[in-house]
Amino acid sequence: MKKIRIGIAGYGNLGRGVELAIRQNDDMELVGVFTRRAPESVKLQTPGVPVYPLADAAKYKDAVDVMIICGGSATDLPEQTPALVKDFNVIDSFDTHARIPEHFANVDKAAKESGHLGMISLGWDPGLFSLNRVYAEAILRNGETYTFWGKGVSQGHSDAIRRVKGVKRGIQYTCPVESAIEAVRSGAQPKLTTRDKHERVCYVVAEEGADLAQIEQDIKTMKNYFDEYNTTVNFIDEETFDREHNTLPHGGFVIRSGKTGADLSTTQTIEYSLKLGSNPEFTASVLVAYARALSRLSAEGQTGCKTAFDIAPGYLSPLSPEELRAHCL
Amino acid sequence: MKKIRIGIAGYGNLGRGVELAIRQNDDMELVGVFTRRAPESVKLQTPGVPVYPLADAAKYKDAVDVMIICGGSATDLPEQTPALVKDFNVIDSFDTHARIPEHFANVDKAAKESGHLGMISLGWDPGLFSLNRVYAEAILRNGETYTFWGKGVSQGHSDAIRRVKGVKRGIQYTCPVESAIEAVRSGAQPKLTTRDKHERVCYVVAEEGADLAQIEQDIKTMKNYFDEYNTTVNFIDEETFDREHNTLPHGGFVIRSGKTGADLSTTQTIEYSLKLGSNPEFTASVLVAYARALSRLSAEGQTGCKTAFDIAPGYLSPLSPEELRAHCL
Repeated sequence: MKKIRIGIAGYGNLGRGVELAIRQNDDMELVGVFTRRAPESVKLQTPGVPVYPLADAAKYKDAVDVMIICGGSATDLPEQTPALVKDFNVIDSFDTHARIPEHFANVDKAAKESGHLGMISLGWDPGLFSLNRVYAEAILRNGETYTFWGKGVSQGHSDAIRRVKGVKRGIQYTCPVESAIEAVRSGAQPKLTTRDKHERVCYVVAEEGADLAQIEQDIKTMKNYFDEYNTTVNFIDEETFDREHNTLPHGGFVIRSGKTGADLSTTQTIEYSLKLGSNPEFTASVLVAYARALSRLSAEGQTGCKTAFDIAPGYLSPLSPEELRAHCL
Repeated sequence: MKKIRIGIAGYGNLGRGVELAIRQNDDMELVGVFTRRAPESVKLQTPGVPVYPLADAAKYKDAVDVMIICGGSATDLPEQTPALVKDFNVIDSFDTHARIPEHFANVDKAAKESGHLGMISLGWDPGLFSLNRVYAEAILRNGETYTFWGKGVSQGHSDAIRRVKGVKRGIQYTCPVESAIEAVRSGAQPKLTTRDKHERVCYVVAEEGADLAQIEQDIKTMKNYFDEYNTTVNFIDEETFDREHNTLPHGGFVIRSGKTGADLSTTQTIEYSLKLGSNPEFTASVLVAYARALSRLSAEGQTGCKTAFDIAPGYLSPLSPEELRAHCL
């Protein structure tokens, strides 16, 4: 069997996760990592895989079946995905929800012009959560959909904490409010405010001699980040920080609570949840599964831009349609 | 907008559920119910919808866009689906897992010969549970998948109870063992036997003067139905039975517990669960959503047989691809 040849563009947490996820799929091989850094400064986890300058990527266009782009959504992907799709079939995890239509249009245009296929906004949200919202809302037409995130590390909020005066180290966990989840599961279709749904829990290592009360107040009142939430600030020492806060867990819940029947008196609940020991390793695993789908759809002659909504589940699996029907249906 | 014209073949619990689900979808209309009974004996919940003899269905082939076949899997669907796909685009909920490949082949052949599209084995298991197994296994390649059913009424086991001597009324609930679910959620990937995963809880109204101890023993030792499970038999009076056991709840869990990372030390958990106030009403809602997908795929010129694995999520939604990307991604 000819393996699917994968390239990775960008080698941060997500790129490292993709590298590891490829190892779990024996129908794929990693053929190169493309980086903006000096290639010789990038140490991979896999011996023998070459590292190339991202600027030279086009030279390798015949050697890569699917380029998985592992840049950030704020500034990298809006540039990189439309640029790389000129030479490659590409996948990204673009997650700035409000800008997805614009990003889609840019990637679709470039992909159609070059005859390639691009898949955007894959991962778990957007991605798996999105398609669970669509399935659930198509099936239970009368109802409410709720998305909860966490418990998990928010990089944006952790960065915000670290900008507060007197903070040496900081990390923020977004936590769903258990009583809100239970209210949703009950079928009551509650109206929930931002504050009702999530709370924010911070762990801070303060600079020596810093004013802890001031740090706590600065965090809790920070506009757009913390002011609309119930926030807890825990001060810990650096050793504890390093020992207990060195992973990137995340997860969440998509719950659709609906009504069926002649008088809409029957309660029906669909719940999808993720409990992730590592957010980047899981997101990487999603991207790699969609790389398989992409290589198949490309072989069928498809071009342009696709999202999770456009891709039939069977395309993700290494099993054949016959095997899927016999063993998974 | 031209509505999708739906026909219902078979008017039991599932057919009645389909009739109600169509009301929740304003892009669809019910154009007729087809029955093996005397049409005048069938009273619909919707005034003005005609009831026709199933034997005359072919006469109405130009009036129906999608025929939703609501027969049973044991004997009805293996006959009806390949027969009706000669004249209609069809959907069924065929759920005899072991015979799906054979049923698929029969429907695929007849559908391709007649230029129609058939979708089989839709509902929640097979159906939504199946596609969650496929997504989860494609993403977490290293791991174990667990399916739990219930709490819910098993018609087959309820029928079995009612055949026991001295039983006047009987119903059986399949219940997942909570401690087994918790063990799976912990990431321990436990080996679970049939007895570990589910227990069976029966409610029985005994005939007057019946030997209750004998009934209990006959149920608990019944081969293929109860002997491999921990079974509880509760005797109740008929009034309680009518009051407390007059609905058909069901549900269940598909949990994939996987490992990622360089040394496979990161635990990742994907869980999909349903809590259904009415099994037939929910299954009907799934069939109706797939009827929308079918009408679109048929308009694209697709023929043959499809399952949930072959159908991209976006096809189920009444929203356009642009709306889905803007609002659900």
